[in-house]
Amino acid sequence: MADPVLFHFDFSSPYGYLAAQRIDALAARHGRTVDWRPMLLGVAFRQTGMAPLTAIPLKGDYSTRDFARSARFHGVDFRMPSRFPIPSQAPGRIVTWLKATEPSAAIPVAKALYRAYFVDDRDIADPDVAADVAGAHGADRAAARASVDDATVKDAFRRSVDEALARGVFGSPFIVVDGEPFWGMDRFEQVDRWLATGGF
Amino acid sequence: MADPVLFHFDFSSPYGYLAAQRIDALAARHGRTVDWRPMLLGVAFRQTGMAPLTAIPLKGDYSTRDFARSARFHGVDFRMPSRFPIPSQAPGRIVTWLKATEPSAAIPVAKALYRAYFVDDRDIADPDVAADVAGAHGADRAAARASVDDATVKDAFRRSVDEALARGVFGSPFIVVDGEPFWGMDRFEQVDRWLATGGF
Repeated sequence: MADPVLFHFDFSSPYGYLAAQRIDALAARHGRTVDWRPMLLGVAFRQTGMAPLTAIPLKGDYSTRDFARSARFHGVDFRMPSRFPIPSQAPGRIVTWLKATEPSAAIPVAKALYRAYFVDDRDIADPDVAADVAGAHGADRAAARASVDDATVKDAFRRSVDEALARGVFGSPFIVVDGEPFWGMDRFEQVDRWLATGGF
Repeated sequence: MADPVLFHFDFSSPYGYLAAQRIDALAARHGRTVDWRPMLLGVAFRQTGMAPLTAIPLKGDYSTRDFARSARFHGVDFRMPSRFPIPSQAPGRIVTWLKATEPSAAIPVAKALYRAYFVDDRDIADPDVAADVAGAHGADRAAARASVDDATVKDAFRRSVDEALARGVFGSPFIVVDGEPFWGMDRFEQVDRWLATGGF
């Protein structure tokens, strides 16, 4: 059985949200599953010296326009959240906890969290809101809420983020296929060909 | 007659080089011409606080890999230049001068300069090298060389770069269709649809 495609994403990333709508189907076409790996762009920014797109002069205005246009182009619902960007520890920890305790719920909950933020404008940085969303999509609501403050979960998530950075993951979405890194949903065509051919 | 598609590019930009291979054909499919507008990423970086891709931790290693892989993906010849990035005033001024004095030579010379740098590893930052390339592709070699040090040409190029920045151009390639901005050759599909439909 081939290794899963690694899908790194930050819950605060609009392009991560767009990629999240398509990554499973893309992998499935090649008989692959996807390992959804929440990360923290803020930690990566400290290493790269970068900043959130919308905080960069010139690039900020363009990016806000491009988020919405790219969503329309791909036929994906999108509304720019009132609060942006957000710290994404709460949803990241809930998904980390689900992967360890109830893996079948992890991807549906991750998709629901993204949708809550980028379609319904809910502030998933709030642990109670994030737990509500998880509870409505197959997770135990109280346990999900508790996971956000659980030292073991916090450690596991932080370790996972650090490991991703150590392997060169610096953006969202960031996809790794058999060791080959692809940054951005604009690399989906390349990911598709790589999965089909094993390299080019 | 519809307005030309504005194609902003830095001669030191690998993605600009890749885009340069396809932009004319893309525009032509929609009955449009292309206005090739050399720019200076270094000037944009000062406004955005950004840096050359290859100078950014983590992102640098990825980018070098992605340049070559993207070229293979698109079937375009590419060799990472020994000196990178380069200041691109010399080729930028030559193309600015050609647009004003011998417009039919501007695009062929721009393409030849890109190829000299990204395929033949010639240092087109050197005014003599840049003039050699221009001379071999339809321009007057001595006049091209002189244009690099011509105060009027220098002013015109600098003004053109400043105007682009004032209109929000911060990267390479950066394409503008009827006022709509698109950054990156990964937006070619969106440019294509925009040209076909007038917006989406």
